[in-house]
Amino acid sequence: MFPLTVSSPSLNRLVLFTSRYSHSPFLRNFKSLSLIHRKSPYNYLAGVKCHASSSSSSSSFTAKPSKEIRKARTEVVPDEKLSALRQQFSEPGVGIDAYIIPSEDAHQSEFIAECYARRAFISGFTGSAGTAVVTKDKAALWTDGRYFLQAEKQLNSSWNLMRAGNPGVPTASEWVADVLAPGGRVGIDPFLFSADAAEELEEAIAKKNHKLVYLYRTNLVDEIWKGSRPKPPSKPIRVHDLKYAGLDVASKLASLRNEIMDAGASSIVISMLDEIAWVLNLRGSDVPHSPVMYAYLIVEVDQAKLFVDSSKVTAEVKDHLTNAGIELRPYDSILSEIDSLASRGAQLLMDPSTLNVAIISTYKSACERYSRKSENQDKATTKLSVGSSGYATKPSGIYRPSPISWAKAIKNDAELQGMKNSHLRDAAALAHFWSWLEEEVHKNVNLTEVDVADKLLEFRSVQDGFMDTSFDTISGSGANGAIIHYKPEPESCSRVDPQKLFLLDSGAQYVDGTTDITRTVHFTEPSAREKECFTRVLQGHIALDQAVFPEGTPGFVLDGFARSSLWKIGLDYRHGTGHGVGAALNVHEGPQSISFRYGNMTPLQNGMIVSNEPGYYEDHAFGIRIENLLHVRDAETPNRFGGATYLGFEKLTFFPIQAKMVDVSLLSDAEIDWLNNYHTEVWEKVSPLLEAPTQQWLWNNTRPLAKS
Amino acid sequence: MFPLTVSSPSLNRLVLFTSRYSHSPFLRNFKSLSLIHRKSPYNYLAGVKCHASSSSSSSSFTAKPSKEIRKARTEVVPDEKLSALRQQFSEPGVGIDAYIIPSEDAHQSEFIAECYARRAFISGFTGSAGTAVVTKDKAALWTDGRYFLQAEKQLNSSWNLMRAGNPGVPTASEWVADVLAPGGRVGIDPFLFSADAAEELEEAIAKKNHKLVYLYRTNLVDEIWKGSRPKPPSKPIRVHDLKYAGLDVASKLASLRNEIMDAGASSIVISMLDEIAWVLNLRGSDVPHSPVMYAYLIVEVDQAKLFVDSSKVTAEVKDHLTNAGIELRPYDSILSEIDSLASRGAQLLMDPSTLNVAIISTYKSACERYSRKSENQDKATTKLSVGSSGYATKPSGIYRPSPISWAKAIKNDAELQGMKNSHLRDAAALAHFWSWLEEEVHKNVNLTEVDVADKLLEFRSVQDGFMDTSFDTISGSGANGAIIHYKPEPESCSRVDPQKLFLLDSGAQYVDGTTDITRTVHFTEPSAREKECFTRVLQGHIALDQAVFPEGTPGFVLDGFARSSLWKIGLDYRHGTGHGVGAALNVHEGPQSISFRYGNMTPLQNGMIVSNEPGYYEDHAFGIRIENLLHVRDAETPNRFGGATYLGFEKLTFFPIQAKMVDVSLLSDAEIDWLNNYHTEVWEKVSPLLEAPTQQWLWNNTRPLAKS
Repeated sequence: MFPLTVSSPSLNRLVLFTSRYSHSPFLRNFKSLSLIHRKSPYNYLAGVKCHASSSSSSSSFTAKPSKEIRKARTEVVPDEKLSALRQQFSEPGVGIDAYIIPSEDAHQSEFIAECYARRAFISGFTGSAGTAVVTKDKAALWTDGRYFLQAEKQLNSSWNLMRAGNPGVPTASEWVADVLAPGGRVGIDPFLFSADAAEELEEAIAKKNHKLVYLYRTNLVDEIWKGSRPKPPSKPIRVHDLKYAGLDVASKLASLRNEIMDAGASSIVISMLDEIAWVLNLRGSDVPHSPVMYAYLIVEVDQAKLFVDSSKVTAEVKDHLTNAGIELRPYDSILSEIDSLASRGAQLLMDPSTLNVAIISTYKSACERYSRKSENQDKATTKLSVGSSGYATKPSGIYRPSPISWAKAIKNDAELQGMKNSHLRDAAALAHFWSWLEEEVHKNVNLTEVDVADKLLEFRSVQDGFMDTSFDTISGSGANGAIIHYKPEPESCSRVDPQKLFLLDSGAQYVDGTTDITRTVHFTEPSAREKECFTRVLQGHIALDQAVFPEGTPGFVLDGFARSSLWKIGLDYRHGTGHGVGAALNVHEGPQSISFRYGNMTPLQNGMIVSNEPGYYEDHAFGIRIENLLHVRDAETPNRFGGATYLGFEKLTFFPIQAKMVDVSLLSDAEIDWLNNYHTEVWEKVSPLLEAPTQQWLWNNTRPLAKS
Repeated sequence: MFPLTVSSPSLNRLVLFTSRYSHSPFLRNFKSLSLIHRKSPYNYLAGVKCHASSSSSSSSFTAKPSKEIRKARTEVVPDEKLSALRQQFSEPGVGIDAYIIPSEDAHQSEFIAECYARRAFISGFTGSAGTAVVTKDKAALWTDGRYFLQAEKQLNSSWNLMRAGNPGVPTASEWVADVLAPGGRVGIDPFLFSADAAEELEEAIAKKNHKLVYLYRTNLVDEIWKGSRPKPPSKPIRVHDLKYAGLDVASKLASLRNEIMDAGASSIVISMLDEIAWVLNLRGSDVPHSPVMYAYLIVEVDQAKLFVDSSKVTAEVKDHLTNAGIELRPYDSILSEIDSLASRGAQLLMDPSTLNVAIISTYKSACERYSRKSENQDKATTKLSVGSSGYATKPSGIYRPSPISWAKAIKNDAELQGMKNSHLRDAAALAHFWSWLEEEVHKNVNLTEVDVADKLLEFRSVQDGFMDTSFDTISGSGANGAIIHYKPEPESCSRVDPQKLFLLDSGAQYVDGTTDITRTVHFTEPSAREKECFTRVLQGHIALDQAVFPEGTPGFVLDGFARSSLWKIGLDYRHGTGHGVGAALNVHEGPQSISFRYGNMTPLQNGMIVSNEPGYYEDHAFGIRIENLLHVRDAETPNRFGGATYLGFEKLTFFPIQAKMVDVSLLSDAEIDWLNNYHTEVWEKVSPLLEAPTQQWLWNNTRPLAKS
C-alpha cells in the first residue's frame, strides 16, 4: 500500500517529531517544502492531508467479502440530525456557536470502529476522510478529490460540500472563523483532536477572536445517535504468542522504564493502539485491518495500568497482564487517572502529536491545581512536599515523541521470521489468485474490480494464520489504476478489462506478520508507452532495493533513487516511496519513511521494515505501481569508511513481476540480473508451497529474461 | 574546489537562512543532522565549521608565485603583544576580562585582506582558520586538524593550542565561559561577528553569567599592530563590462527595489562584497582570489549610497556610479548612515547571518531612540510623525536573507557565455600544463607540489583576461591528496611522486568568468585499489552530471546520487558534492548547494552554477576527486508530469579525465558512453585553442574507451 508520507496519523506524529525543526508541525514543514508539481490531499482544518487513503471509517468488520460490507447507513434524515445537534449548542454547559466533527477516534487511528464514525453519521458522507463543521445556520463538509463524487451523492441539501484542495476553497478553520460573528465559541470533542491539532485550530480561529471550547462531558453527535449507534467493539483480546513477539512484556517494560527515566520523567501515557498492542504482546479486533484493541496504557516506574473494556479481557489475557504487573482499569477512567498522576507529582512523558487534547489538557490543569496547592502547603510547612507515591517534585509534562515508536520499528529476529514466513504464505495465496484471475480473464469471464478483491480475500483466508486484510484492497483496471486512492465500490466499480493495465495493491494480517504488495499486470498486449513507464518504475524499484548507504541516513535521501529513471523522461509520482510496516501490526507505521517530504530525519536502521513502491499514474489511462516490502539490514561491504556500518535492504516479498511489461532494451545488464535473480528466488521460496497447476503458473512467471 | 557546505561564510548564510526551520543556525541544524561517520571541522566558538578550507588570511597578493607569498610575519614577540593587549582590558571605555579575536573581516569574506588578519598577527599562527581568545592570564587558539602541526610550530609557549574537534576539547565560548570568574565581561570587535554569531556567543556565555561587550571604538589588536600593520588595500576598482555582466546597474537596482518593497521594507544594507560587486557591475582587487572591493551598499527606494574608500574610485567608476544614481560615502561612515536611516524612519532589510553585529546593533539602538522620541512627539502633537525623508512609519528591522544572493546565483546569458568562454581558455592552459607536467615527471625531474602549482599559474596567467587564481591551489601527491584541505607550503611540501596518485584542485579568475576544476592522475601504473576507487568516484560524478529532476528539487536530493557507487562498497567522502560558483566572482557562493547536510532547501534553478566533485580519500595513502562545473538548465524531457519543468545539467568544464585510472569492467555501457562522449566534446571544443604538440597530448587523452 503506497505511502502518503503524512497519510496516517501514526506517521504524522513521527514525521513531525523526529524533525526537530518545528514544534507545530506540518503547516510549517510542508508549506515550506511544497513543490509546485506535487500536491497532496488536504487536512481540512489546516490545509494538509492527514488521513490515510484506504481507511474505511464505516466498515468495521473483519475479513468479510467486500460486497457484504459496503451498504447500510444510507437512510439519512439529515435535517433532523442537524436540528438536534444545533439544539444542544445553547444547552447549559455547552454554549457554542459551531461544532467540528472530525473523522478521528480518540487514538488517531488510521482505521476506526463503526461506533466512532460520527462524521459519517452526522453528514451521511461515508468516505474515509472528511471534516464536518456545523454552525447555527450552516453545515459544511470538507473532503478531497477522491471523494467529491461520493460526497455529492451522499450529502443532502443542508450541507455544503467543500472541495478541499480546489482553488479558493478555504480550510475548515478558515471557514468557521469567517462565518462566525467575532467572539464565537467553537466546540470540539477534545478526545478527537491531538494536542497539536487542537493548538493549531485554536491559533487559527483566534485570529478572528473566536475561542475553542472543549466539550468533555459528551460527544454531541453521540447524543443524537443514541439507540442506533453501533455498540463499541467487544471482541476478545488475544495474547500475541512470544514465538512471534520475540520479546516478553517484562523486557519491553524494563526498556520503556529506562527510556522514561532517561527523559527525566516518572511515567508515560500511551494512546496509540499499535504501541499498546506491541508493548503488551496483545492483539485485538476492534478496528478493521489493524489487530489492535481500544485502550490507554500508563506505565510508571513501579506500576502500570491498562485502561480497557474488561469484557474483552479473557482469563488468559488477564493472567498475562498480571504476570507483567499490569493492573486493569476501565477505559473511561483514563482522565481521572491522569488527574491522580498529577496529584501524585508525576513527571509525565507525553507525545502531543498523538495524545488527544482531553488527556493533555486535563493533565495541565491538574498540574496547575496541584502546584498551587503544594505551594500553599510549602508555605505552611516550609518543607518540600512528598506525594503519596513518593514523587518529590512538582508534576509537569515532558513532551516528546513516544519511545515505543522507535522500539517497535526495529524488529527482533522472531518478528522478522514471522514476517518472512507470512510473506511466503501470502505469496502462495497470490499465486493461486493470479493464476485463477488470468485464466478467468482469458476465458472472458466478466469480473469486476470488487469481484477480484473478494476472490483474493478468499484465497488468502485459507492460508494458515490469516486474520484480516491489512487495508482495503486497491483493485483498479485501466484509468481506475491512475486514481491513487481508488477504492472500488460494488455499485460503481469497473470490469477488469483484459485490454487494460490492472493494478492490485493488497495485504493481509496473519498471526505472525503483515503483508502489503502491489503488482501491475496486463492480460493481453501492453502498449509501448505502458511498457516504457512500467520499466522505468521497475528501474526505480531496483535502484532502491539495491541501495547501500551509511548508518545515519534518513529515508528521504533514498527517495530520489526510486524516481531518477522516471525523472529522466519527465515523469514522477505524487506519493512517497516507502512507509514503515508493523510486524503483525499496522500496515502503516513510523517513525521512518522514504519520501520526497524531506522533514523526516529518522535514520533507517537495521531491523526496520519499509515498503518500496514507486509508481507512475497517467490520468484517465492507467496506473503502475510495483511494491515489495524490504527490511533494513547491515550490508557486508568490503570497506567501512570512517568505521561506519553500511546498510542495505533484504526483500520480504517474493512474487513475480510480470515480464511482458518489461522493455528489456531500457534495462542495464545489472538490472536484468536483478530481475532474473529475484525470480529465481521467488521460485525457490514459493514453489514448495504450491501444488502442480499453480506451481506451473509460478514456473512460467519466473523464467529469466534474455539480455538484449 | 570542494565544498564544505558550510565552509564559506557566504554559504553558511544561505544554508542557514533558506532553511526556515531554525532561526539560530547551525548549532541546532547541524547538531541534529550529525551523522556519526561524518565529522567536519569546527567553528571554534560554537563547535561548527564556518571557515573555508583554502582561504588564506595571510596572503593578500594576487597572482604571485606561491614561493614568494608564503613567508613573513614570523618574528613573533608574542608575550609583548599579549601584554599590550591585556593592558587595554582595563582602560576607560574598555573594561573587559577577555577578548576574542576571530579570523573574519567585517564582511564575512572567505578571503580577507592582510590588514584584517588580526588573529594571525596576535597569535603568530597564520593558518586560514582559527580563533584566538585572550584573558587576563591565559591565551588560547582554536584551529582544526589540518593546522595542528603548523599551529604547534607557530604558537609560542604563552599560547594554548586548542585542537578543535578532538575529544574533550571545549569550544572557545565554552572555554572562555569556564575560565572567567562569574560576571565576566567578554569583549569583541562587533564588526567581526555576524549578528547571528554574536547572538550565539552571547547566549553561550550568558549560561555562566558572563556578558558580551561590543567594543566599537577600536580593534584592540590594531592598537598594538599600528605602524607595522599593512595598509588597507587600495587598488583601483574597475567597471565589470556590460558584455560580461549582461544586465546594467539600473535594471539590477530596479529589481532590488521591487524586492525591498515586496518585503515591506524601504531600504536595504548589504555587506557581502560579492553581492555589492554584482549589483554595481564593479570588480575590485582588495582580497586574494575574489575580485571584490571592501564596501557597504545602502539602497533605498529613491537613492543609493556606496561606502568605499574614495582612493579606489577611478573617474570611470565614478561616472558609472553617478549614472546609476549612486552616491559615494566614506567606508568608515557606515554606522552614522545606519543611524540616520533609523532617524528617518526607514524599514531596513537586513540579513543577520551576514551583516556584522555593529551594523545591526547600531540600527536597533537607533530605532529605540527614535521611537521613544517619536512617541514623545506624538503625545505632544497627537499626529503620526513623518520623517524628513518621507517615511511615515516607525523604523524597524526586517530580517531576511539577502535577495541579491538569489538574483546573483541565477546567471544571465552573458554571464553564462563568459563562464563558457573562460572555461575553454582555462582548459587550454591546463592542457599546456598537464602535457608539460607529464613530460617532466617522465624525465624524472624533481618537482614539488608547490613548483607544480606555480607552473600552473604561469600557464594560466598568459591566457586572455586572466586576473588571479580563484583559490589557493590544492596540489597533493600521494598521501597529501588524502588531506582534503591540503595546502602545500614551499618549506614542507612533497615531491610529485611518479609512483603515486596526484590530485590537483585549482581555478582561476578571468575577466569574464571563474573556473574551478579537479583532476586526479597517475603518472605510471595505478594499483587496482586506486582504479576501483577512482572508477566509483567517476560513476558518482557521472550520475550527478546526468541527473534530471523536477523544478523545486533542493540540491541535497542529488547528493546521494554522487555517493551511491562508493556506498556500495562501504566508501564515502566527508565533504559536500557541489557548491555554487560566481560568474567572474567568488568561487564559493550560495544559496544553492549539493550536500549531505540536508538543511539547505534552496531549489536548484535554471541558470545556477554548481560544482560536481565527488571524491574519495584514503588516509595516509591517496586522494581522489573529479570536479567539473555544471550549470543548471531546463531538460528537454519528452514528458512534463504535472506541468512541471524538469531540469538537468550542462557541463562548463571540458578537460580529459585520465583513462588509465578507469576500471572499465565496473562501468555500465551508458557510463562508458558518457566518458567517450565527454572526451569527444573536450577534443572538439579545446583542440582549436591549442598548437600542435599540446594538441597531440589532448588527442591522446580524449581517445574512446572500448567497452569490456
